[in-house]
Amino acid sequence: MALKHKVGIIGSTGYTGLALAGLLINHPNVEISFLGSEQYAGQKFSKVYPGLTGLIDMKCQKAEMKNLEKLDLVFFATPNGIAHKTAPSLIKKGIHVVDLSADYRFRDLKTYEKWYGFKRSNKADKEINKKAVYGLVEFMRDEILKLAESKQAALIGNPGCYTTATILALSPLLKNKQMLDLNSIIVDAKSGVSGAGRKLATGSLYTEVNDSIAPYNLANKHRHTPELEMFFNHISSSKGIELSFSPHLSPMTNGILATCYVTLKESYVKKHKVNENFIRKIYAEAYKDESFVELLDKDIYPRSRWVLGSNRCLIQVSYDARLRRAIITSVIDNVIKGAAGQAVQNMNLLLGLEEGAGLKLSPQLP
Amino acid sequence: MALKHKVGIIGSTGYTGLALAGLLINHPNVEISFLGSEQYAGQKFSKVYPGLTGLIDMKCQKAEMKNLEKLDLVFFATPNGIAHKTAPSLIKKGIHVVDLSADYRFRDLKTYEKWYGFKRSNKADKEINKKAVYGLVEFMRDEILKLAESKQAALIGNPGCYTTATILALSPLLKNKQMLDLNSIIVDAKSGVSGAGRKLATGSLYTEVNDSIAPYNLANKHRHTPELEMFFNHISSSKGIELSFSPHLSPMTNGILATCYVTLKESYVKKHKVNENFIRKIYAEAYKDESFVELLDKDIYPRSRWVLGSNRCLIQVSYDARLRRAIITSVIDNVIKGAAGQAVQNMNLLLGLEEGAGLKLSPQLP
Amino acid sequence: MALKHKVGIIGSTGYTGLALAGLLINHPNVEISFLGSEQYAGQKFSKVYPGLTGLIDMKCQKAEMKNLEKLDLVFFATPNGIAHKTAPSLIKKGIHVVDLSADYRFRDLKTYEKWYGFKRSNKADKEINKKAVYGLVEFMRDEILKLAESKQAALIGNPGCYTTATILALSPLLKNKQMLDLNSIIVDAKSGVSGAGRKLATGSLYTEVNDSIAPYNLANKHRHTPELEMFFNHISSSKGIELSFSPHLSPMTNGILATCYVTLKESYVKKHKVNENFIRKIYAEAYKDESFVELLDKDIYPRSRWVLGSNRCLIQVSYDARLRRAIITSVIDNVIKGAAGQAVQNMNLLLGLEEGAGLKLSPQLP
Amino acid sequence: MALKHKVGIIGSTGYTGLALAGLLINHPNVEISFLGSEQYAGQKFSKVYPGLTGLIDMKCQKAEMKNLEKLDLVFFATPNGIAHKTAPSLIKKGIHVVDLSADYRFRDLKTYEKWYGFKRSNKADKEINKKAVYGLVEFMRDEILKLAESKQAALIGNPGCYTTATILALSPLLKNKQMLDLNSIIVDAKSGVSGAGRKLATGSLYTEVNDSIAPYNLANKHRHTPELEMFFNHISSSKGIELSFSPHLSPMTNGILATCYVTLKESYVKKHKVNENFIRKIYAEAYKDESFVELLDKDIYPRSRWVLGSNRCLIQVSYDARLRRAIITSVIDNVIKGAAGQAVQNMNLLLGLEEGAGLKLSPQLP
Repeated sequence: MALKHKVGIIGSTGYTGLALAGLLINHPNVEISFLGSEQYAGQKFSKVYPGLTGLIDMKCQKAEMKNLEKLDLVFFATPNGIAHKTAPSLIKKGIHVVDLSADYRFRDLKTYEKWYGFKRSNKADKEINKKAVYGLVEFMRDEILKLAESKQAALIGNPGCYTTATILALSPLLKNKQMLDLNSIIVDAKSGVSGAGRKLATGSLYTEVNDSIAPYNLANKHRHTPELEMFFNHISSSKGIELSFSPHLSPMTNGILATCYVTLKESYVKKHKVNENFIRKIYAEAYKDESFVELLDKDIYPRSRWVLGSNRCLIQVSYDARLRRAIITSVIDNVIKGAAGQAVQNMNLLLGLEEGAGLKLSPQLP
Repeated sequence: MALKHKVGIIGSTGYTGLALAGLLINHPNVEISFLGSEQYAGQKFSKVYPGLTGLIDMKCQKAEMKNLEKLDLVFFATPNGIAHKTAPSLIKKGIHVVDLSADYRFRDLKTYEKWYGFKRSNKADKEINKKAVYGLVEFMRDEILKLAESKQAALIGNPGCYTTATILALSPLLKNKQMLDLNSIIVDAKSGVSGAGRKLATGSLYTEVNDSIAPYNLANKHRHTPELEMFFNHISSSKGIELSFSPHLSPMTNGILATCYVTLKESYVKKHKVNENFIRKIYAEAYKDESFVELLDKDIYPRSRWVLGSNRCLIQVSYDARLRRAIITSVIDNVIKGAAGQAVQNMNLLLGLEEGAGLKLSPQLP
Repeated sequence: MALKHKVGIIGSTGYTGLALAGLLINHPNVEISFLGSEQYAGQKFSKVYPGLTGLIDMKCQKAEMKNLEKLDLVFFATPNGIAHKTAPSLIKKGIHVVDLSADYRFRDLKTYEKWYGFKRSNKADKEINKKAVYGLVEFMRDEILKLAESKQAALIGNPGCYTTATILALSPLLKNKQMLDLNSIIVDAKSGVSGAGRKLATGSLYTEVNDSIAPYNLANKHRHTPELEMFFNHISSSKGIELSFSPHLSPMTNGILATCYVTLKESYVKKHKVNENFIRKIYAEAYKDESFVELLDKDIYPRSRWVLGSNRCLIQVSYDARLRRAIITSVIDNVIKGAAGQAVQNMNLLLGLEEGAGLKLSPQLP
Repeated sequence: MALKHKVGIIGSTGYTGLALAGLLINHPNVEISFLGSEQYAGQKFSKVYPGLTGLIDMKCQKAEMKNLEKLDLVFFATPNGIAHKTAPSLIKKGIHVVDLSADYRFRDLKTYEKWYGFKRSNKADKEINKKAVYGLVEFMRDEILKLAESKQAALIGNPGCYTTATILALSPLLKNKQMLDLNSIIVDAKSGVSGAGRKLATGSLYTEVNDSIAPYNLANKHRHTPELEMFFNHISSSKGIELSFSPHLSPMTNGILATCYVTLKESYVKKHKVNENFIRKIYAEAYKDESFVELLDKDIYPRSRWVLGSNRCLIQVSYDARLRRAIITSVIDNVIKGAAGQAVQNMNLLLGLEEGAGLKLSPQLP
């Protein structure tokens, strides 16, 4: 039996860290060797989450180098603004990093600084950021595998939850940008409450959220807007794509639904006699070899519940010929495919494991 | 003390009829004299809804003319396709009708027949349909009052739930159509499950809906699309407005949130230096005398919970200058302002009562 | 038109205060003249609860005597340990007090001090406590009316939410204590999350509570245990009744269900041939003149949803002849009948108003 | 690599069958070779549950012998009254059966017939019933292993969901029956809605269940009462144990919490100086070698969410010395440990596999 890779989680007691821990304890090829927490250092993880008594009784530790240096890979499940301080020294020691925060998602650090407020002047950090790959596996697999093959420690910037759902929904069209009116994109996304994390906030109380749906940060006020624009410019080899991203809080624990609108060009539609099936084919082709993305049968709309607990993304394609408007809907579990699961996918690639190892998770049934 | 008006509800045991009954038992100027049900005729209403034991113990009756002829006003809370058969004989007897189904919402019966499948060949029915007023009170008050003053029995077609939320959100802009790209309207609406009524369907089971959000009937497949187009053409004195209406099922019992997108014309924006405040003023002005519609303070987004149990509509205005896109969000309780409450508003106007009588309802707190 | 009584709420921005405010703005005979808040003094109430914009825009004030002295009645919706400091000076000024905290629920201050930890040495406070009446209206109406007739300022200790549901469920039997094994009482109660108030706590986050049911404070660790024992000793003219009270957190915003178990004495059962109908008659008789308590038809079990938003209590009686065990179930809305609604009932009696004034509230429908 | 055992599910499209299918597709040692459905025969399983598109696209088949005879083991996830008709012919063919319905839970067929209404006159069926083992693994492991070793086809009657939670909560005490007043047992249990299955019923609609908790079938009217009494008599070598079992519907999809009350004998308590720790030790000892049952740390109460998606049971022990009353609380996922997971545990034992194979499931996180 092969030795297991040793991995650690910095920021393990937030919801993303928790989800990662839950996935990793059942992963066939890795073992958790470090659970980081500043607040709970010295306490059992199951003291923080008593539901895990008997499952994860390992003690939390501080993220000091002596606790980290024997690891093969470290996940950052920390708030934004932390990973970029510690990651460089890990990379230097030859330890892979998968950062679930936003620190390494932007090649253009000006955008990062504008939206996240953290200055990035450290040279090693900048160097690493330049080489870091945005870990949206389905569209960046080649780049990630290249990192893995380089035999050097590598850093992956794991995508945001909303962005994952949206990118999977829209990228097949954006790769065919000649079809699209590129300034017509609207993403109306709905997320469960776990996206807000475990921090105390009146707006996250059960009594304020239950039986209620609400928008927030409309009109270019949410940080996933620039992340989407960055990626869509990349995937379509464009510049200047701007879009409306409208997040909503839906009364459910986990799950994201992205309802994405984009208008097709009149000339293209006429020339190619575009209809719903025409667009379906693009998606069927785009995802035919993907094990975690599924195009649903015609007229079956995705429900966010259908992917809970799994690493899957379900997609449907609709088309209103009157308005030449494609409406693409996608669902993911925000903490799995939208965070921890995708991070494990990235880890698997970096460590040379099967991409789906540890991710054969049936969704919640019923 | 004034005599109370006698009112009846045909189709009282569905959720809309139930909500109406709940409002009317506390109305100061009317009394429920008839609760109609084919299925439960002869049984106490509180047998159907045991939670109302001691509150509404009146027996249900069949909708036969002998049971209806002494009424002053009849509500139809029936499925579509029923009211247009019975309403003519009621009108003939001098009884006002408020129809909560779709039967009398369309002046153009071809549109009705296309979307609802019922033929409308009866002459009296057609005559009534021609005079019927679409009961979106805030924008049709004058027409409704004119009916009330005519001293003849009148018929109001009470608007749909989604359409009410959307019309209140967008009409102030549509009354200024010179601002707008009229084919850019997208309505991404989210509704609670009660909108599906009490009929048995796998998709309405708790287990299928809970902790899940899902779209349905996308791309011009939902009946509220033509209703919206009809009204927006009317309010903006336009022809040919077409829009995307995307309904979603949200895991909550009651409530609707409409997130509405519309792009402004470049020329208008430049000329008038349009910004968010410019649009806010339009809404503040539009609703300054309305007691059931409220524009929220800047940066406060509406939550559907905030109106549950009330007849209120809360609205917020956002504007993305980069894309010249206005995003208007509105919330209502789908069974109150979106159905029974608005019907009572209409009844009040028809019967010469104070418009808000019986509708002073605090929302659910907390 | 009669002048309206002026009332105030100290601690108005918690959930109980909020619910009170929501009831009082629609009360026909009183007006809110004071909304107290230390934290939000100077701010509009609708700033704290933006859903009430246009409904309650009055500003919050500090609870200083100059702001209170013109009031006819003051509600305390404060945390425990506050009312007993301020109430004496209000009573002295001739202002009625309805205290929704636990401060004035216990004649025996030792029990209060033991469970709540506050010393009570002030003489005026003690004097007031001695005369205070426990405001469980259905069983204490005569005492409350006596206070009201005394023409002096009076103080009512408004019962707890769990205790209200339980007392209404069990008191008709306890008034017949010769039937019962008095040490066999078990109350297994389930409450919505609003019972925990609006304070920030990890255990009240949506993510921790949703889709989950959990017990807490079992085995004589919840403060409503001594309150129940106190009242049941009183109502049955007993001493030494001890019981098991088991609170549970149920994933819902509002509502309480109490499932109450008590064993009947063998001798009594045999002599009187006790069966379910025998017990039903006791309840039917006990509540025949009560407008807010309803015995459901046989085999219809109460659902907490059925009373949401109303001041009603629904009760069912079951009996297992094998074990001579009566199982009484009752539901209330914890913030209405379990707090604010009952407080208004008490206010109405103190001010000489109709007991149900302002409380004609249909439950949420559907 | 070892060949995989072939297993089938009769009644695969109900929720229990669905959960079984979800577990078995990830089981390392078995493969699903048959998915039974009368209603959907010929259709893809993922047509019935579109969320499983790409995961379970196998077609449903009728439960005819030609489709079953090559299987190693068959699960019945059918309604009650079906398994006992088909199981005998499977057993005869040498195929193991795990029956998730109630058909084979009762040695005493009179009790079964009284509560379930099905006559059982077939001789082979009766023979099988006599040898069938009640599959509550933690307390029946030896009997199950004996069946497995017999090299003959065997039948396990898989326990009910409520009964599993309750048996795990109370059996350690019942094995020490000298401690207990055996007629003092009360089980107040709360279940998610999936326990009612996927059949259409008004009481299972989201709108009727959400934000509501309700009892049902109180006072010896629920079928799990005789199942509990049967097992508790067995485990304590008693006769005539009768108890109160009170089921409740809690507004959540999955999960069960059992709150169990039992009074201790005065003489025993005095002699052994019983306190909470005394009882804790009994539980710690009882479950020290069990991988799916966990005693929580002192003062940590179980929450049903903590086990969702897992095969685990969490238990807490409380003791009220005043009343000599032990209150044992336990949580399970009703469709996993309460049905499909336990069935897989039983299958594993019958097929000679590791008991926990395919059941290493982290609970839902968060």
